[in-house]
Amino acid sequence: MNYQDFKENIIKADDIIIFSHVNPDGDTLGSMIALYLIIKNNYKKEPVMVVAGEIPDIYCFLPQIDKAVTFDKIEKDRVFDLAIAIDVAAKDRMGAGVPIFDRAKVKMNIDHHKTNNGYGDYALICPDACSAGEILFDMFESLKFPIDKDTADALYTSILTDTGGFRYDNTTAKSFRIAAKLVECGINAGEIARYCFETKAKQMVLLQANALINAEFFENQKIVCTCITNSDMEHFNAKEDYTEGIVGTLRQIKTTEVAAVLKEVTSQSTKVSLRSKNVDVSKIAGAFNGGGHIFAAGCTIQKPIKIAKEKLVEEIKKYL
Amino acid sequence: MNYQDFKENIIKADDIIIFSHVNPDGDTLGSMIALYLIIKNNYKKEPVMVVAGEIPDIYCFLPQIDKAVTFDKIEKDRVFDLAIAIDVAAKDRMGAGVPIFDRAKVKMNIDHHKTNNGYGDYALICPDACSAGEILFDMFESLKFPIDKDTADALYTSILTDTGGFRYDNTTAKSFRIAAKLVECGINAGEIARYCFETKAKQMVLLQANALINAEFFENQKIVCTCITNSDMEHFNAKEDYTEGIVGTLRQIKTTEVAAVLKEVTSQSTKVSLRSKNVDVSKIAGAFNGGGHIFAAGCTIQKPIKIAKEKLVEEIKKYL
Repeated sequence: MNYQDFKENIIKADDIIIFSHVNPDGDTLGSMIALYLIIKNNYKKEPVMVVAGEIPDIYCFLPQIDKAVTFDKIEKDRVFDLAIAIDVAAKDRMGAGVPIFDRAKVKMNIDHHKTNNGYGDYALICPDACSAGEILFDMFESLKFPIDKDTADALYTSILTDTGGFRYDNTTAKSFRIAAKLVECGINAGEIARYCFETKAKQMVLLQANALINAEFFENQKIVCTCITNSDMEHFNAKEDYTEGIVGTLRQIKTTEVAAVLKEVTSQSTKVSLRSKNVDVSKIAGAFNGGGHIFAAGCTIQKPIKIAKEKLVEEIKKYL
Repeated sequence: MNYQDFKENIIKADDIIIFSHVNPDGDTLGSMIALYLIIKNNYKKEPVMVVAGEIPDIYCFLPQIDKAVTFDKIEKDRVFDLAIAIDVAAKDRMGAGVPIFDRAKVKMNIDHHKTNNGYGDYALICPDACSAGEILFDMFESLKFPIDKDTADALYTSILTDTGGFRYDNTTAKSFRIAAKLVECGINAGEIARYCFETKAKQMVLLQANALINAEFFENQKIVCTCITNSDMEHFNAKEDYTEGIVGTLRQIKTTEVAAVLKEVTSQSTKVSLRSKNVDVSKIAGAFNGGGHIFAAGCTIQKPIKIAKEKLVEEIKKYL
């Protein structure tokens, strides 16, 4: 798809819907909102924004986020003129939205995941972009759509969160150059960073501290792992996403080669998150029918958490 | 001082010394090294780099950092042709280096702190720059000094650390634009971020987790504080800098208005770090003869840690 196709399809369509992905993150939400605002501001149309699942509290500062709805709010059998999936690597990542997407007269797919197979009638896949927000910024700039502060806030949130605050290896000169332009559009970079990275529930901080205190070290501290039981989750009255970030902190420890967080699902099932500095943890996850990337992978072991931990540590040792 | 003064004084001087500030951070070290490399690469001169105090482990990745010496390595009464203080807000922040600076034939002062009084024969004070590294980048670019990868690594470290990873309010469009240019000079932004922000000693992680677990909450969780005793420091075999960051994590808690970390100095003396979201904590610190900024301040209370905590919480309550 070229930028002109995007513009022409927006002009032709009256009834537009924008899809974000399940477990919504800052990129899919920020770029969904940026799309919504550009269409609304330039064409006086009001697209429907849909989210598959709860919006994390930290993103509630995003402009217009309260306009996003869940699928149950959309009339059964409604046929949209245009459906746009943004940051949705595979169609099934729209969750319950797939039939609505499929029914739309024109289907558009804008994404930066290299695994995206280009589903839909029009696809714009840019694997070199750090985020879907970066793709949109380029397109909006090229089509000369004015970027107001709200749109800039949304695009900056996309770029900021998908580069891990400019800390991941997908951070490029272009990421920084767009950030500079967004500051000139009126964003407050410090404020958005505080919303995205520096707002935590008290119980999350305490659950995480507890998990770190209980960390166990093996093989000259090259392996570090911690277990989070259902009783821990209850004790800290924790939501599911409160465990996010723990495995990253364990990887930060100087001696760490492989970090693992084990989370009890049931008495017979344990979810594992793995991170490493050099070791290919996708292979370790693979040994338990999981998968992922070299430095970040995951799996579920059908064992009680204590036994899962023993089996996992034995497996990790083979890769050191 | 204009850029030409800088250049002419470098050309005239044979024996050059560069001063960083006490408790060296990423900005003073990064910009010291950038200055060293530019002078060495362009004028075949080998300036002496001095540090007042131990270089934190996380900055040992910086190119040429092993060339930096402490003051005791400099011959008594040696008179330098040119002394450059970089990122040194006040002369006494050179620590034991002040007499060496004062003895130099020409004294130069390059800094971004607005409180800098312009000491020295030549001063270049730019309070709008996010970091000393930003001032140097502008100067090097204007003077057409080529910026090689090592110099870019050093300058990026300055900007990255003094903006808190582009999260503080001193982050500007210019900070991002320079970051983009430094990526084009060959830096790996992700790698430098991992060195600066994601490398911690095991005992630091454990001490911090312990301090978080022991946090106490007051006034509907608007006040949060934690105490670190000398026995905690011993138990975790902790270095002094291991407590850094705890008060920031406490501030991240959603309900927090004022966060405080109390650290036992002696049985009769307690050091306090304060952070806030809106409250002017410099006034709270002022009540105990301390000081600082609106959102970050500190003081020392001449009381045992438990009594200090009670007095501090009473004082904070007045400002909510």
